[in-house]
Amino acid sequence: MKNVLVGQSGGPSSVINSSLAGVYCRAKALGADKVYGMRNGIQGFLEDRVADLDEILSDDYKIELLKKTPASFLGSCRFKLPDADKKPEVFEKIFALLNKYEIAACIYIGGNDSMDTTRKLAEYGLSIGSPIRFVGAPKTIDNDLAETDHTPGFGSAAKFIAAMTKEAIRDEVVYSTNRTIYIMEIMGRNAGWLTAASALSRGEDCPGPDLIYLPEADFDLNAFRAKVAALLEKKNNIMIAVSEGIHDEKGTFICEYADSDKAVDAFGHKQMGGTATYLTQYCEREFGCKTRAIELSTLQRCAAHIASLTDVNEAFASGGKAVEAALSGKTALMATLLRKGDEPYVCEIGLADVRKISNVERKVPKEWITEEGSNVSEDFIRYARPLIQGESQPVMVNGLPRHLVLD
Amino acid sequence: MKNVLVGQSGGPSSVINSSLAGVYCRAKALGADKVYGMRNGIQGFLEDRVADLDEILSDDYKIELLKKTPASFLGSCRFKLPDADKKPEVFEKIFALLNKYEIAACIYIGGNDSMDTTRKLAEYGLSIGSPIRFVGAPKTIDNDLAETDHTPGFGSAAKFIAAMTKEAIRDEVVYSTNRTIYIMEIMGRNAGWLTAASALSRGEDCPGPDLIYLPEADFDLNAFRAKVAALLEKKNNIMIAVSEGIHDEKGTFICEYADSDKAVDAFGHKQMGGTATYLTQYCEREFGCKTRAIELSTLQRCAAHIASLTDVNEAFASGGKAVEAALSGKTALMATLLRKGDEPYVCEIGLADVRKISNVERKVPKEWITEEGSNVSEDFIRYARPLIQGESQPVMVNGLPRHLVLD
Repeated sequence: MKNVLVGQSGGPSSVINSSLAGVYCRAKALGADKVYGMRNGIQGFLEDRVADLDEILSDDYKIELLKKTPASFLGSCRFKLPDADKKPEVFEKIFALLNKYEIAACIYIGGNDSMDTTRKLAEYGLSIGSPIRFVGAPKTIDNDLAETDHTPGFGSAAKFIAAMTKEAIRDEVVYSTNRTIYIMEIMGRNAGWLTAASALSRGEDCPGPDLIYLPEADFDLNAFRAKVAALLEKKNNIMIAVSEGIHDEKGTFICEYADSDKAVDAFGHKQMGGTATYLTQYCEREFGCKTRAIELSTLQRCAAHIASLTDVNEAFASGGKAVEAALSGKTALMATLLRKGDEPYVCEIGLADVRKISNVERKVPKEWITEEGSNVSEDFIRYARPLIQGESQPVMVNGLPRHLVLD
Repeated sequence: MKNVLVGQSGGPSSVINSSLAGVYCRAKALGADKVYGMRNGIQGFLEDRVADLDEILSDDYKIELLKKTPASFLGSCRFKLPDADKKPEVFEKIFALLNKYEIAACIYIGGNDSMDTTRKLAEYGLSIGSPIRFVGAPKTIDNDLAETDHTPGFGSAAKFIAAMTKEAIRDEVVYSTNRTIYIMEIMGRNAGWLTAASALSRGEDCPGPDLIYLPEADFDLNAFRAKVAALLEKKNNIMIAVSEGIHDEKGTFICEYADSDKAVDAFGHKQMGGTATYLTQYCEREFGCKTRAIELSTLQRCAAHIASLTDVNEAFASGGKAVEAALSGKTALMATLLRKGDEPYVCEIGLADVRKISNVERKVPKEWITEEGSNVSEDFIRYARPLIQGESQPVMVNGLPRHLVLD
């Protein structure tokens, strides 16, 4: 019995399927008999919904397409696995299915919550003396996983965000004779990595955002107004990047002031959105100038057409490392990205204890946030710049990127 | 005296600078002495703010960068030129400046309002017996200019919209086990060309939007609810594309129901936005499922990183044609795109009387809107598909598209 099972979970990214391709290719290279995919993650697996990846990935062109297709090819879920001591029947069912498919190694591609699932499965397996191994492959545009320098998915989202910031600034400054305030809202509930990535737009040909607000620093509306007022003394067109999760010192999300009736998901996370709209309306009232709220919304996590080649390759390699570890008998680990140098950028793939990762959120270091919490430092730029390098040319068919799709 | 003056006006596009490059290159090839650019269009020219393009475009690399830089390089304006009989002093000032710079040909790149400016200048010039010639070069993502098969700027916006629709659908269907409704809001106050372009996402690897609503058909909320309800019987994940300008049979914009306090610009156009948010909130109440409003906002008009090469080339050629016509003594014209064949697609550049273009809006033909106003036909696809073909590879520097910027 040397079959492999792989699942994808949590929010989409542009390169989560490159990780899947990495798992598949490395598993086959290491002699795995069959490679199965969970449809809709552990939730679908519990319903015995499984895809035969040997059938689906029957030629190299399909594998190449898979690497360039955004969002979880196998489908995803936001299913919170219960604790094994509270609902052992769930784990018994999962292990019965794993045995039915003669699985030796199970790889789960995802973020914090998915690593919690990996941890629970690994621990349960060890507790019953099962030989089945569980290793996670990192995935999250949020870049908030511990024990890894960065996460697959972040680089491509950062590249899209930085490119759109550059292009939106070009758009804004055409009316240089009028005062305008553009506010771009970027994903990130508790960690500001993605919003910070807007600063990568800064360079010889672009001033970058004038103000950048991350959830790591408390947001103060009065200080914000003062900063915008000071900027308007010097220039007409102001670009501000805000994280959807910015909050005041009481911990109240700014978007909650706009809409106090936010929904809550299965993990108890409040739905975000509306921060930019709230702040543009505020600026319109305070400064009487034209404003525009730009929400990058889901676009930032699925814009594979401008994926970072570095990111695509690291996702592929980390998927491969995860399955290699599991097939060699290791369990309760996650593949990690270990930076070995900045210039030139060198990154190796390592492994870390998944227990140190699940349910931990890694945030932007305080010392990288400058100017009273309204910008990021060169340290962040040095950190993030290598991650957006290289073009993963999409396969263009009839004018549009081609995707591999599961029926 | 054989100098050329060129200006850009109205909203940005991804290829408006390719038109500018076309004007510049053709003007020089035809022996123009100097080529000047109006800064911020006719408004800046009235303040004698002029750029020396010979200095700025001093080598071929800069011209190449210009072709790939989104939004008006020279700056734009939304300045409504008065009627010459009401405010002759404005025209006297403009012509004094034209004479000061020894201008023989003046090219204005823009949409309907800009062609109105071109018409007024040309007519005033003729009325005073001036030898200065005025020709327009078409530019608008809205694709609503008369006398031309399509407009430079539309193809690239359409390509971005179709690509993002494909990618957002990939994003949405990962939660195939839950019901979701995504509503994508696309620019277009009175013409639905851009929203229709979301249908280009439809193909072997993508279902495309389930419903498409253009301003050309009255929007009926009850019919909408019935269609969504019927779709939810068949599938879990629904993607809907709506134009920002959809309105009910009384002519009230749907976004006005969300916010009755919309601002009005210099041309009396109401500001749009909020349609998708309004409809997602409605769907949430009616169907109790997860929804997401995605506003493509300014991104759709400045995403030069995924510009259509066909569009870039046609913009360049139409700019060239405009200045050629003006230098050969013609006036009160606009360069047009004339489709000579679909398969293979052949497009020639022509000229049309600017009087037939200014202040006319060309809309999507009624017969291309199907299924009770909730989708577009294959005729539209056949029309639009050639316009998104080919990749205008951005010049990538340090992981991001490089732009040419005026200091």
